[in-house]
Amino acid sequence: MSVVVSGRVRLARNFADLPFTTHGDNPQAQTCIDRAVDAMKEAPGGRYTLRLLKDTPPTDQLALVEQHLISKDLLQNHHSGAALIRDDEQISIMINEEDHLRIQAIVKGLDLKTAAREAFEAEEALERIHHFSFDPQLGYLTSCPTNTGTGLRASLMLHLPMLDRFKQMGSVNQSVAKLGLTLRGIYGEGSEALGSVYQVSNQVTLGRTEQDIVEAVTVVGKQLIAMEIKLRLKCLQTHGTELRDTILRSYGLMRYAVSMDEKELMQHWSNLRLGAALKLIPHTLEDIDKLLTTAQDAHVRQYMNRLAQSVDVKEARCLLIQETLTRTQKPSVSPGDAENE
Amino acid sequence: MSVVVSGRVRLARNFADLPFTTHGDNPQAQTCIDRAVDAMKEAPGGRYTLRLLKDTPPTDQLALVEQHLISKDLLQNHHSGAALIRDDEQISIMINEEDHLRIQAIVKGLDLKTAAREAFEAEEALERIHHFSFDPQLGYLTSCPTNTGTGLRASLMLHLPMLDRFKQMGSVNQSVAKLGLTLRGIYGEGSEALGSVYQVSNQVTLGRTEQDIVEAVTVVGKQLIAMEIKLRLKCLQTHGTELRDTILRSYGLMRYAVSMDEKELMQHWSNLRLGAALKLIPHTLEDIDKLLTTAQDAHVRQYMNRLAQSVDVKEARCLLIQETLTRTQKPSVSPGDAENE
Repeated sequence: MSVVVSGRVRLARNFADLPFTTHGDNPQAQTCIDRAVDAMKEAPGGRYTLRLLKDTPPTDQLALVEQHLISKDLLQNHHSGAALIRDDEQISIMINEEDHLRIQAIVKGLDLKTAAREAFEAEEALERIHHFSFDPQLGYLTSCPTNTGTGLRASLMLHLPMLDRFKQMGSVNQSVAKLGLTLRGIYGEGSEALGSVYQVSNQVTLGRTEQDIVEAVTVVGKQLIAMEIKLRLKCLQTHGTELRDTILRSYGLMRYAVSMDEKELMQHWSNLRLGAALKLIPHTLEDIDKLLTTAQDAHVRQYMNRLAQSVDVKEARCLLIQETLTRTQKPSVSPGDAENE
Repeated sequence: MSVVVSGRVRLARNFADLPFTTHGDNPQAQTCIDRAVDAMKEAPGGRYTLRLLKDTPPTDQLALVEQHLISKDLLQNHHSGAALIRDDEQISIMINEEDHLRIQAIVKGLDLKTAAREAFEAEEALERIHHFSFDPQLGYLTSCPTNTGTGLRASLMLHLPMLDRFKQMGSVNQSVAKLGLTLRGIYGEGSEALGSVYQVSNQVTLGRTEQDIVEAVTVVGKQLIAMEIKLRLKCLQTHGTELRDTILRSYGLMRYAVSMDEKELMQHWSNLRLGAALKLIPHTLEDIDKLLTTAQDAHVRQYMNRLAQSVDVKEARCLLIQETLTRTQKPSVSPGDAENE
């Protein structure tokens, strides 16, 4: 838990009887939405709520991206893009993104098998009436051939500050690539690894079983976690004072700064998360992880609307962070406790 | 009070019947010490304690410099350098520095007249038996001709962060020089103006009365204070958020950093002092001013000796600062109250 931020499995699916075009206000796009809504009405595991992009203010759209409930790409299709989100926010079904459906299940830890099971349960519900485009040789057909086959992407979001600090991400990247996996930044393809948050996921969806993919990502994830933990303990031993200084300076700035942009936030957030993992600050990992979402721009803008004061987004971010840290502070902390994954 | 750190008046005096050499272990040096001790036994205003440099450990010597009770120059004369320090630390008499005696009175605010009166009271006590070297034309004779005449230096230690910020110290320096005054850093001649702490004092001791000198320094001090206050209010109006951010970031670092060197201390101390003046942090100016002395290297080393933990001076500084800030924190603060000098 001290390295894994979350695990996700997503399935790309398309209805066999509809053209693969999802963009614009074509009638097929509405059909996809209607079918998904109908199918999930009685779905197991909880109630689903439909979010139509065209009815969602831009800030709220971006907030959904920050929560990883929808992708940035979905925002391109503001006419017919939509998402069915289970009320516990563990499952989201994007509609009319690159494919008709993108089913995503999120778990807190390393347990991608549970994520896969949940995603397949939702898939089954969605396919009850209308079949998905499937080729006996190729597997599931998708809009982009890179997703064809299983249509499955398993990914782990990992916090790897020490691999970053010791400049090991270059060689890690190469090793991971050899295994058919890929490392990406916090918002997936093409995004920066702000705050040392990386996503490791399978590159290839074809020619491997679903179980193999989930297993491969889990194994590599565990290796990265072990490397990170080893470096943390080493750094504590050899540069303990410097490490504590870095972490607690970030904590001091998060508690007292008046204005902070998103890029700086990520840098301090990363130090705070490491501090929570090493029990150097009086907050749980869960509390710090929540800030990864709630202190991002769109969430801060939502918070701003509830404020009586007139402040800009960088000031509102600091107010939100300080409110959160004050609220979640534990009464005491025993510094330097060894961590366990 | 929000700009003035302290005011000081010092008198340079030499016994008429002794050669002006004060250095080394010559018998005259011991005579100076004996005479001063005898003279101040029954002096008004409080008990005096003799500090002989040769009996004072190096750290404690430097701590006296940090308290401005002795000068760095006195440390050159470790054989016979000494100081008689009144127990309230408002008066100190350096013995065998450049002159036989350097009588110094310190006041908290702008009231140099009180400092002068106290210094002259001590001078009178010191001269009761042995007369000082005095020339009817030149006045008091001193080891270095720049002090001849009144032998008086009046100085104000001022905190001028805004004059620094708006790069006005260059032109201020020129104006001050035209008035026969001089601006120096925190430890006097040749020292840096760390933490935007400046000392304004008279350059010339000859050809002006004591009253004129005290008056001139007071007038220029008041002008500098007015300039500084004006810039503070302007900056609060035009860059209020940025200013609060700078101050509170320094406060956060002072409250949480694990390791800090003296140079960085001075930068944050300056921001904290401005924050206390503008009521942006829950501490009084007095509490912050104490840190200017107690968080310097020698004082931190004294504090280290009392610690159970084994830490270096940069870590001990942070422990001391955090202990002080926790102890002196006021229950509440109304931010942004206008300040009054």
